[in-house]
Amino acid sequence: MAVGEANLNFQVVPGVRLAATAAGIKDAEKSVSDLVLFEFAEGSTTAGVFTKSLFAAAPVVLGKKHLEAAPSRYFLINSGNANAATGEPGIEDAMNCCTATSQLTGTRPEETIPFSTGVIGERLPVEKITSSIAELTSTLDDSSWLQAAEGIMTTDTRPKVATRRFSVDGETVTITGIAKGAGMIQPNMATMLAYVATDVRCEQEMLKELLVQSVDASFNRITVDSDTSTNDSCMLTATGVSGVDLADASTREIFYPELASLMKELAQGIIRDAEGATKFVTVTVEGAPGSHVSLEIAYAIANSPLMKTAIFASDANWGRIVMAIGKADVDIDIDKIDVYLGDVCLMSQGGKASDYTEERGAAVMSKDEILIRVDLNSGGSSETVWTSDLSHEYVRINAEYRT
Amino acid sequence: MAVGEANLNFQVVPGVRLAATAAGIKDAEKSVSDLVLFEFAEGSTTAGVFTKSLFAAAPVVLGKKHLEAAPSRYFLINSGNANAATGEPGIEDAMNCCTATSQLTGTRPEETIPFSTGVIGERLPVEKITSSIAELTSTLDDSSWLQAAEGIMTTDTRPKVATRRFSVDGETVTITGIAKGAGMIQPNMATMLAYVATDVRCEQEMLKELLVQSVDASFNRITVDSDTSTNDSCMLTATGVSGVDLADASTREIFYPELASLMKELAQGIIRDAEGATKFVTVTVEGAPGSHVSLEIAYAIANSPLMKTAIFASDANWGRIVMAIGKADVDIDIDKIDVYLGDVCLMSQGGKASDYTEERGAAVMSKDEILIRVDLNSGGSSETVWTSDLSHEYVRINAEYRT
Repeated sequence: MAVGEANLNFQVVPGVRLAATAAGIKDAEKSVSDLVLFEFAEGSTTAGVFTKSLFAAAPVVLGKKHLEAAPSRYFLINSGNANAATGEPGIEDAMNCCTATSQLTGTRPEETIPFSTGVIGERLPVEKITSSIAELTSTLDDSSWLQAAEGIMTTDTRPKVATRRFSVDGETVTITGIAKGAGMIQPNMATMLAYVATDVRCEQEMLKELLVQSVDASFNRITVDSDTSTNDSCMLTATGVSGVDLADASTREIFYPELASLMKELAQGIIRDAEGATKFVTVTVEGAPGSHVSLEIAYAIANSPLMKTAIFASDANWGRIVMAIGKADVDIDIDKIDVYLGDVCLMSQGGKASDYTEERGAAVMSKDEILIRVDLNSGGSSETVWTSDLSHEYVRINAEYRT
Repeated sequence: MAVGEANLNFQVVPGVRLAATAAGIKDAEKSVSDLVLFEFAEGSTTAGVFTKSLFAAAPVVLGKKHLEAAPSRYFLINSGNANAATGEPGIEDAMNCCTATSQLTGTRPEETIPFSTGVIGERLPVEKITSSIAELTSTLDDSSWLQAAEGIMTTDTRPKVATRRFSVDGETVTITGIAKGAGMIQPNMATMLAYVATDVRCEQEMLKELLVQSVDASFNRITVDSDTSTNDSCMLTATGVSGVDLADASTREIFYPELASLMKELAQGIIRDAEGATKFVTVTVEGAPGSHVSLEIAYAIANSPLMKTAIFASDANWGRIVMAIGKADVDIDIDKIDVYLGDVCLMSQGGKASDYTEERGAAVMSKDEILIRVDLNSGGSSETVWTSDLSHEYVRINAEYRT
């Protein structure tokens, strides 16, 4: 139940090694990979953005502190247990995992950042994790990106990896990233889990700027069900191994579009694999007096259960688009609104387009990938969000799966 | 697929007569009732609250004008067509229905308020409506409340009627109301369609105050799918026939709780019959520093698709309650939060309650009616909203039904 083909190609990132194993967190039989270790070369810099949930999970709370305290050398990521809403004991559990990593790698505990995803409100099985770290450190390899992408999955049906390789002044630069997430998706500053690494050199503050900007145009523009996770994190690490330095503005001008495009690919990969998704939907609202207005209307459409069930049914349901736009809490002149489904004009100047027919709408809706474009004709601001449909399968998955 | 027994009892309201017929709007064969006429005695006063949708339907736009222009003598209500997003022609269509009513009843057009509900974006079949008004005026009767409740239904599975009869200083007073609505429900100032009439005397401004106050605690506290209709309207009419006058404050003190309780019953009736509903869910957030905070958290829970699918599955999903509270955009101390499922304490001081077990949670969740109570222990404000679960049936209905 995913839309489009998955990309499984990637390039190694000099300065990054990875390992994954089955620690028995998801499944006592250890049949499924659920523990991942990233190692970054000495001298790497890391930036992160995290969930704004009031119940930010223990690893998020501790991870933010570690990110400030020292350059990160290791990420230790488990799936199957979110270590969220676990209070002070949860923080201690996460810390014990960092300490175990530090002892085996000869680093300080704050050089490890812990991440968790899975069931909320259960204590982390610390012993299962710490007893598996030696295996991870001994199998670190620069080519294990797909194994890592699989190890962080929960309800995902497939791993998500994206990669870019390009040249800066004759030097080759690589960016590769992985992400997970399929439900509980309306990120607020970051999504589920995403790890992106590159071999450029970049000081932390600048890296954070590039991360925030690219996340804002990618992970912060997707929604499956308007629900926000307790563990959302998106990390960007620069190993510096290529020697290319982002301190130079002209280098950043080459680097940033590649980073932004990779982030967008990963974010869209989450939507293509959204729980029960049968359609990939792009909602663009343009001609708005400001970004707030375009986003408000775009999310009103993208999060409407009635809109999403109509899309699932491939129903060019004119009335539901009108309803969804109408409920947006903005002040606009509806008599100026044009709405397009793909290339077909549904609404012109606030009323049904004179040449619109059900057949023309249905032809667009029958496709797997659908563009809904709203032109407010009231300004120069434009925003795009991506979403999926609401299917029987979404209800089945979420009625059966224990978050 | 409705929760609990439907109430079908009602008391006639002196000064109110009603009629319903099949005008062929919903179904060319005229097998289903779809046109309703209310008549109010001369001297009646009427107040109304209406949708805040940007695409407020033509009858809403015209009805507001008529309500200001003259005391209302007739409500003409059709189901099957919303006359929404129909522009200036839609306003003319609604006006033509009012004019036809006025000609047959010897009143002015502005003494009729038009209402529509059903498919959005289609022209109103005016001829079908105007040719049926004579039948309606000739069959007006004070006991046709149930027929009227049926005539305004769309995806509703049963009519919704509520009634109160009580005594004020030895005089008998009656309040009776009907409502419709099953999906596209998160009213914003009013819900779908609701008509409440009473035989007290009350000047219009005071009636509006009582209506706004009671709607705010009833129809403005329910949500099925966070979607807001283009046609939401809630009307309150006072015929004055009983002679009891609400100008007297002590009379209002007896009257208002009865009105508020009837409004709540009608609003809850919509949730009990919500599209695909198998559960009736009450979400109460108390101990909040202000009403804004309690409502924000209550709606975060009530509108969460993940929470709603867990409720459908009778799954005491601890993590999803935490997630839903966490995504609310408020500033609170999570270490003070207690959460109860019915009488069972799930969360105490922000963590899992020490005596909580899956079995105790599951026992509450297996019931048809579920109370989720959140105590923030941070103030004196409390708010309650009502919602339903998200079932396979909701997706089926909305994938198949054309709004």
